[in-house]
Formats: sequence, structure tokens, C-alpha cells
Amino acid sequence: MPAPPEFLKYVDDNANNFIQRLADAVAIPSISGDASRRQDVIKMANWLNNQLKAVGVTTELKDLGTEQIEGQTLPLPPAILGRIGEDKNKKTILVYGHFDVQPASKSDGWDTEPFTLVRDEATGRLVGRGSSDDKGPVLGWVNVLQWHYENKKELPVNLRCCFEGMEESGSEGLDELVGRESKPGGWFEGVDAVCISDNYWLNTRTPALTYGLRGLAYYKITVSGPARDLHSGVFGRTVYEPMTDLIAIMGKLVDSQGRILIPGVEDLVSIADEDEKKIYASLDYSISDIEESAGAPIALSSDKVEVLMGRMRYPSLSLHGIEGAFSGVGAKTVIPAKVSGKFSIRLVPPQTPKLVDPLVRQYIQDEFSKLKTKSKLEIEDLHGGKPWVADHNHWNFEAAKRATWEIYGKLPDLTREGGSIPVTLTFAESLGVNVLLLPMGRGDDGAHSTNEKLDKANYLQGTKLLGTYLYEVA
Amino acid sequence: MPAPPEFLKYVDDNANNFIQRLADAVAIPSISGDASRRQDVIKMANWLNNQLKAVGVTTELKDLGTEQIEGQTLPLPPAILGRIGEDKNKKTILVYGHFDVQPASKSDGWDTEPFTLVRDEATGRLVGRGSSDDKGPVLGWVNVLQWHYENKKELPVNLRCCFEGMEESGSEGLDELVGRESKPGGWFEGVDAVCISDNYWLNTRTPALTYGLRGLAYYKITVSGPARDLHSGVFGRTVYEPMTDLIAIMGKLVDSQGRILIPGVEDLVSIADEDEKKIYASLDYSISDIEESAGAPIALSSDKVEVLMGRMRYPSLSLHGIEGAFSGVGAKTVIPAKVSGKFSIRLVPPQTPKLVDPLVRQYIQDEFSKLKTKSKLEIEDLHGGKPWVADHNHWNFEAAKRATWEIYGKLPDLTREGGSIPVTLTFAESLGVNVLLLPMGRGDDGAHSTNEKLDKANYLQGTKLLGTYLYEVA
Repeated sequence: MPAPPEFLKYVDDNANNFIQRLADAVAIPSISGDASRRQDVIKMANWLNNQLKAVGVTTELKDLGTEQIEGQTLPLPPAILGRIGEDKNKKTILVYGHFDVQPASKSDGWDTEPFTLVRDEATGRLVGRGSSDDKGPVLGWVNVLQWHYENKKELPVNLRCCFEGMEESGSEGLDELVGRESKPGGWFEGVDAVCISDNYWLNTRTPALTYGLRGLAYYKITVSGPARDLHSGVFGRTVYEPMTDLIAIMGKLVDSQGRILIPGVEDLVSIADEDEKKIYASLDYSISDIEESAGAPIALSSDKVEVLMGRMRYPSLSLHGIEGAFSGVGAKTVIPAKVSGKFSIRLVPPQTPKLVDPLVRQYIQDEFSKLKTKSKLEIEDLHGGKPWVADHNHWNFEAAKRATWEIYGKLPDLTREGGSIPVTLTFAESLGVNVLLLPMGRGDDGAHSTNEKLDKANYLQGTKLLGTYLYEVA
Repeated sequence: MPAPPEFLKYVDDNANNFIQRLADAVAIPSISGDASRRQDVIKMANWLNNQLKAVGVTTELKDLGTEQIEGQTLPLPPAILGRIGEDKNKKTILVYGHFDVQPASKSDGWDTEPFTLVRDEATGRLVGRGSSDDKGPVLGWVNVLQWHYENKKELPVNLRCCFEGMEESGSEGLDELVGRESKPGGWFEGVDAVCISDNYWLNTRTPALTYGLRGLAYYKITVSGPARDLHSGVFGRTVYEPMTDLIAIMGKLVDSQGRILIPGVEDLVSIADEDEKKIYASLDYSISDIEESAGAPIALSSDKVEVLMGRMRYPSLSLHGIEGAFSGVGAKTVIPAKVSGKFSIRLVPPQTPKLVDPLVRQYIQDEFSKLKTKSKLEIEDLHGGKPWVADHNHWNFEAAKRATWEIYGKLPDLTREGGSIPVTLTFAESLGVNVLLLPMGRGDDGAHSTNEKLDKANYLQGTKLLGTYLYEVA
């Protein structure tokens, strides 16, 4: 069922109040990755907790313990769990968001002070750190609840909330919390579906629902030889050089066209059939979209479907850099003693870190043996995560499609993301229910970049969309 | 003719005075690469100038102008030119050395204060920055002249000196000075041969004469694509990645066994015949010497002659590192926008930077074309220098061989060095005469490293050797 027209009108009428709420949130520099800002993240938890209680949510601040960072013990910011409704005849929907943000300072290149929300009337942009990632979407839920609370309207579903303050720093402590609360008697018992608003449209024009994320297997391969760095004049062509061996191995992992050369890794992935290709063909996306965001005409193909599948449903391997070699400007004639190449593979189903790991190790060891070098090799996996794909025909998605149609007058792009949002998999696996990613912001919001923004239209229409989704899913 | 026995005895009798002279020199931290120490380099020039005048040398401090460093204009330390004797019936010998040093501080890992000469009676080592590189050898000449001056003995040759204070920083200003002074009417007019004492024995046991140095061609190859760094989740397998292309090219330059893969580069070099191999076979050197100095069993061959030829008479190619990629610790999922690989080729005759440059560029461009990438390639040569080989049967070398036999009771190793001493080529080309490298210190002196030392025995025997060389060359 559609949302009440009064609710939609209320959002428009209260635009200024809602923007002020976002400005208040942005003003708290809740940077989880900066130890000196930890108290601001905790302050932000308390502020949001008060906002939720003020619109009728029963909440609890969950202590997640401490972490060691830069030699000091820091309290983790609490997670906020909330609930409204216990009606056995209603569906129970869990919504997730986070109230911490990426670092930002004017010296990074921001045009305005990042922790002051700037309302650009000419462009309709609300500029400030966290506006789109993820304070705007979180407050979208608060805005929805405010109308129901003020007008004594019962929600069409039982609502559960989980808002955390460590998403930008590895969601420290969250996995355990979700595991505990998913058990009988926990806050998430009885949840029928999950909705996460923490990603972006594919472009700047068309709303999207996201049903897949790539996983990750991140490797560090270390090649070592001499006891210390050597002078290339004295030692060049007398000893095995670790850099020569490392570069040889790194050069055998992926080709310029992006094909992964590690035998078996690509074979795990199915070929897209015509039906699946149609999904990509239907997305509101062009080669110029990607070349515009990359800033250069460097797309791997002129076929939009190929490029989209490269991002969404094929694995990728990127070489990130080398630790221990000469990385400064100028010329230094060093033979580095120990060098570590960093690369990662973005995984798609049915690939998992566990499945590709033996293939990666075997191949690298085999290729290294062929070099007949006296250098030593070490292979480490630094971190990994499984990919995730949801059923986009599930009632949870169908509800979001109808809601999108009602608010935006168009069907959403059905997207898979090339990156990871690990908490998605945590909810999918702990609860065993469908998870929907329902983005509020646009593809050019610049979430982790300078001048992060949320368009005012997206904030307001997005608030309506979240509310309408609750009615459609009911 | 051998040196007078009185001179040899005088060196032993004055050991403590000579060591005190070295201690006084080491106490001046004349670090040419540190702008804040520039006045100390100038102070060192004045100190040395006074030492030379006190032993009868006619000197002149030559102003070399200024340099721009870290945004400030710094005066270059003056070079010291000196002369004794104008006898048309004597040979004229030019000696070169430098009075500046590499940076050093206790925090680098020195066991003692680097600018205080420490006399270790147990090992016989004189420990301090510059003891071996190159204050010890320079003062060796002063010690020689002191005996002649105090005893009113005429030198067997006309002597010319050139001591500079910028050797550790590219010998700024020296090429022009040598060029000017080599012309008629210049300080170096009439020079018959050059002797430079600024390198090391091959090992810790056997004196050496050095007759060859490798040249250098240093390259930076830059591959660029996107306008900014990209997120590998969002862009992996949608765009051409500069790192993939750069690593592919760097992987095609040299193999693990040290063979240069750029067509034509190795072909320029002749194959060693049996006679030449005998020179390497006769050197007092073993595989364990090189593995000990590298700190690991990583020699490219178990054949001593092969390993020595790899260092001395074959070219080498070393990969130094990458600028612009992720080089920190930890895991970062970046696709770097612009990356520059640094490598250099050590050259041997008849290779020159000019001869190998077109081969390097053509090969890299050809291999890059094969990648069929949309990334952009730029090739820059950062700096270069020609290799140098002298005739080791020249009377200049023969004199040094006899002098070595007289002082050490053995024939010297005839070595070529894998690195460069650019001033050698400057003298050889400007003056068109034979240049001899006559080292004072041992292979383990740690010239640019922590705990630099000169063995007391080398300082005293080396002083005798320099003096005896003047008599033998006369």
C-alpha cells in the first residue's frame, strides 16, 4: 500500500526543519578513524539516541568494549538498537545505518568547512561531511518516524533499528553484536527483512536498488634477499634482487585488459546469459558516465554491458603498490632488501576468499619457482570478505520497486556494486533473511572525497521513499 | 725509485699526530647534502687550506658560485687548488680528494658519536664519519707533504692538488672548474697523470688499484590514466589501470638472473676472453666475500669469475621502486592514477647513455604498444654518466703496483668498480691523461653507512703508499 499523502506533504512542509536536523548532525565531527575524535563519535551516538527517543523509539545504547589504536585503549562508540511495535500480524523490518564519518578538513581541498552544512541554493546541494554517508539516510528514518509520532499514526510494520559508529573503521564490534542479537530473545529476533540505506545511485538521474556486492581477497607478497638495502653499483648483477623477482610475479597476475591470469579464479564464475545481460543493458548508464567519473577516456570497452559487468558481476584484480621499495621523488640507486607487493581481488559468487586462496598461493609459488631465484617468498592474506548477492525478485525488493515508482515515477536501476559493505553480509548470514540496499544519494555525492554532498531533492524524496517503502513492504 | 726510509719511519713515529689531524678533520661535520651544515663545509675548506699551506703548498680557494636548495640560495663551498714545484724535468701529478661527507647522526644507528673520531685499540679501527671517505686519504697527502716540508726535501714530482667539498652532492661546480683549469694557463696545465684516493679495496686483506668504473643511465617511466586515484571496488575491471601496465613493462626489463632483456643493450659488450678472465680469477675474492657483505647467500653464481665480472665488466639493470603507488604499511584498495617506475642500467664500455637510450626507449614503447592499453606512457632519463676504463699497464699504474709491493709486500688486486665516481671521467676527458684510483681503505669501511671507519694500519700504510707512489711515478 502507498504511504499516506499527509506524510508526503509533511516532508515537503518540514524541509527546513529536516535540513536543520542534518546540519546539527554534520556539526558533530564523528570521525571514527581519528582517535582524537572518539569523544565526538560518542557524542554523536547520544545525540542520535535522543533524536530516536524523541520520535517514539525504544532504544538501548550497546557497549561494544574497547579497541587498541596507536598504543592507546579507546572506548568503542556504542551501537544504538531501537524498536517500535510488537504486532505479530505485521512484518518486522530492520533498518541499518551509521553515524560515524570519514576524516575531512579544509586543507584536504574542501571549498567550505566540512563540518558546517552548507546549503547551496543554486545547485540544491547540501554540502558537508556525512551529508550523504550516512547521516542523511539515517535522519531520513528519523524524519519518517517524526510524522508518525506527532500524528499518533501506527507504523505499518514492526521496526527495528541498528545504528553504529564504527562503519568507516571496519565496523569494529558489530559482527558479534549482530550475532548475539539475532538469537532468540535478542533485539533482532523475528526480523523478516533488512533495509540498508548506505550506498548510491549508479548515476545522478535514476534511483537504484542494489542486490549484490563484490567480496575481497587482499594479498601482500613479500620477496626478500639481502640483509640490508644494497648499492646497485656495487651489487648490481652479483646477487638476486628481490624487486626483480617481485615485479616478475606481479606482472603475471592480471593483464592490461583486466583478465585475471591466476588459473581457476575466473573459471569459478558463470558466463552471463542473455537474460542477465538484459539487466545491465537496461541500466541508465553510459560509457561516458564511467569516463566522466574516472576523469579520462580509459574504459576497458565501448560496450556498456561489458563495462557494467566488469564492475558488477566479474572479479577484478588491482595492483595497489609496493612497500619497501624506493617510492620518493628523484633518483636513488638502491637495491631494496625486502619488498612487499600489494594486490587485491574483488570476488563475485561463487568465489570466496577461501576458494580462491589456494589457487592464488599455488600459482604464485609455481611462478616464483620458475624464476630460479635465491630470494625468499612469503604470501599473506591481509583481509578478505565474501561477495553477496540477494534475490531481487523477493517481496522486500518488490516493495522497494513500487515505492520508487510512487516517489520518483520511474523504476529503479537494479545494480550490483563493485565494492564491499561488509555489514550487508553480516545481516544476511546472521538473520538468514533478504537484505535490500536502498540508496538515498546520487553517484556523484563524493562519499569519501572532498565536498561531500547530498542533494536536497534526494534528502526529501529519499525520506519519502524510506517511508513509502515501509508501507509497501507491510 | 722507492721512498726514503726516513719518510717511512717518520710516518710510524708520527702516528699519534696524524691520527689527531684526522680527529680534527672528523670533528667538523662538513655534510654537503645538509643545507644547515653548509657553513661547516666552508669551515672545513678553510681548515684544510691552512693545513696545506702549513706544509708548503701554494693554494687558492676557488669560488664555485651558489646553488638553489630547498628554496634557498646557498654558497657552494670553494674548491682548493694547490701546487708544489714547477720543474720541467719532473712529471706533474694531480691528486684529487674531497673534504665533504655523507650525513650521519647517532639516531641512524651509530654506536658512537659520528663526528668524534673514536680510536678502538682492540680492533685498530678509527671510527668516525669521513674517516675513510675521504678525509683519511686527503690527510694522507698532507702527512706525506709534512715530512718533506719539515725536512726540506724536494718532492720527486711536481704536485697539483684538487680538493672539493661537494663530492657527496653531485660535485656541483667541479666539471666547469676542471674544464677551465685544464686549459693553457690553468692550474692543471702540464699534468701528466692523475691519482685519486677515494675508493676501497675489494676485501679486507689485499690492496687494490682500480682501473674501471661503470657508467649509469637512470630512467623514470610514468604511466598515467585516470584524473585521480580510483577506488578498486568501483573501478576495478572497468578501466585500464596504470599500475598493471607499468608492472608489465618493468617485468620485461631484466630477468631474475640479471640478464638485461632490452634487445641490443647486452650485445654492445664484448665477451671476456681467457686472458681477461685470468685477471678476475687472480683477485683475492671469494663468493663468501660477496655473500658476507650482502648478508645472505644470494650470489648469482657459485663461480667467482662470473660474479666478479657481473660487478665489474658487465652491465646491470636494477629496479629501484615506484613513485605514486601505495607504498605504506597495511592494506589500501586504491587504483593509483599515475605511477612512475624507476630503474637504472650500470654501463660498461663501449656502452654510453647516448648509445643505450634509443634502445631503451624503442623497446619500452614497443612493449607498451603490445599491451593495447589506453594508459599514457612517458619515458624520462633522470641522469646518466659514461663508464670509464683506464690502461692498467700505464706507467702510472706500474708505479702504484711497485709502491704497493714495497709497502704491503704483495701485488695489488687490479679491480674495476661497479659504481661510479664521476670526477674520474671528468679528469680523464678534460686532461686526456691516465687516471689511477689508489684506494686507502678496506672493503668493509662502511663509507656511506653507520660506524664508518678507517683502520689505523690503512691510514699509516696508506700514507706511506701515497708517498712511495710519488717516488715510483717520478
